[in-house]
Amino acid sequence: MSEAGFQYELEFVVRDYECDLQGVVNNANYQHYLEHARHEYLVSQGISFADLHDAGVDLIVAKVEITYKFPLRSRDRFVVKLRAEREGNVRLLFIQEIRRLPDQKLIVQARVTGVATKNGRPVSPLEIAEKLSL
Amino acid sequence: MSEAGFQYELEFVVRDYECDLQGVVNNANYQHYLEHARHEYLVSQGISFADLHDAGVDLIVAKVEITYKFPLRSRDRFVVKLRAEREGNVRLLFIQEIRRLPDQKLIVQARVTGVATKNGRPVSPLEIAEKLSL
Amino acid sequence: MSEAGFQYELEFVVRDYECDLQGVVNNANYQHYLEHARHEYLVSQGISFADLHDAGVDLIVAKVEITYKFPLRSRDRFVVKLRAEREGNVRLLFIQEIRRLPDQKLIVQARVTGVATKNGRPVSPLEIAEKLSL
Amino acid sequence: MSEAGFQYELEFVVRDYECDLQGVVNNANYQHYLEHARHEYLVSQGISFADLHDAGVDLIVAKVEITYKFPLRSRDRFVVKLRAEREGNVRLLFIQEIRRLPDQKLIVQARVTGVATKNGRPVSPLEIAEKLSL
Repeated sequence: MSEAGFQYELEFVVRDYECDLQGVVNNANYQHYLEHARHEYLVSQGISFADLHDAGVDLIVAKVEITYKFPLRSRDRFVVKLRAEREGNVRLLFIQEIRRLPDQKLIVQARVTGVATKNGRPVSPLEIAEKLSL
Repeated sequence: MSEAGFQYELEFVVRDYECDLQGVVNNANYQHYLEHARHEYLVSQGISFADLHDAGVDLIVAKVEITYKFPLRSRDRFVVKLRAEREGNVRLLFIQEIRRLPDQKLIVQARVTGVATKNGRPVSPLEIAEKLSL
Repeated sequence: MSEAGFQYELEFVVRDYECDLQGVVNNANYQHYLEHARHEYLVSQGISFADLHDAGVDLIVAKVEITYKFPLRSRDRFVVKLRAEREGNVRLLFIQEIRRLPDQKLIVQARVTGVATKNGRPVSPLEIAEKLSL
Repeated sequence: MSEAGFQYELEFVVRDYECDLQGVVNNANYQHYLEHARHEYLVSQGISFADLHDAGVDLIVAKVEITYKFPLRSRDRFVVKLRAEREGNVRLLFIQEIRRLPDQKLIVQARVTGVATKNGRPVSPLEIAEKLSL
């Protein structure tokens, strides 16, 4: 997967409280990093996750596949990259990577499938964007 | 503080992900334990934190004082104890302790001051309880 | 997948701090639940994750696939079920499910691939168990 | 407390997963912010929390007093400020504030008392710094 394929990236630094007793970032925290990058990406596109929720619309993760290649440690700098693709009518697919900085070592690869729901029912993510003038 | 003074207690086990790179429970997680015990206590009194929120009422922590006496480690069993007291008209004071099991070693002492707000304004916790028939 | 196929299960209750601004359990927390159940399963088999780490051996998650079927909400009771399988010489596969209680509604399905490393190099999980008399 | 009195400050943005079902940052997460700012401050002074731990020295929080003035919400920018003071021979006191940006609204005030331990026994923080050439 060429780096050129990513649409967005966001830099982070590992915080000590994110590391567990193995001295590395706890697995669940990578999901936090991936989520935060997705939400910031949506904001950069004019879509606020919190505002959507207030309007009855929730963007929901239907599936995650995360491959852990190498662990991050205390104070490592890293970047989360992503690109978004439509998958059929109601799904959004996010292809994401986490790479350590500055050496670009591959840390995590992820595929995250999202769906949009309005008042609990699946709706087209495109429709939502238009209806809400997002 | 005599153990007899507590009105409620709840048992937990330390989960590995709650430990940090020092091999002990991260300080912020004690606050999670203390909070969960308070919420379960409220539920035991017929008050649901989440239902209150849906009714526009939030129970908010105004202040915490936590003294860390001894750390918990992976898989330690422990109990969170509490008693609630009124403090003036709009404040609730929770006196809490965390003790390791089965040896009752003192881990944490805490004083947590709570206030109730309705649509963002402070209200008497007693009124709320009555108005909502909680 | 029949329920009979699971070797271990562990009950939990959703804690309010595990819910996010959508009012449901944040996705990353399901990974915490799945991890805690795996670690408790290992302990039930005489294997301590923390003791292994102190002996230079780390059980590492190489891959997770998590399908989110339905969200858990504040104070929901649920059970995490699992069965472990060998996958080749160096991999352990954990098949896991989260079901809400008491209605057994399917919440999450997960496949988690683990490998064991000693001082950073992959080793057979079986060898480790024997060498350490676990 | 005048702003001039702070020695260090670090900017953050609220991440959605840090908010709870009340739509505001969960109380325990402020402790994460405060901790991260302290650790980054120590690093800025040439002291690595993780390196210290590897050398047998742990900086431990003995007490926290946190006053919650106003909540942070999704995506709020904020700054954590601190100054460090010696308290007797073995204690370090951190005076900390969290202020929302750009309006400098006061969010949290905190006093955090730290002690240093070497192999579990309290030692002077100054001695450590010298011994380890930090």
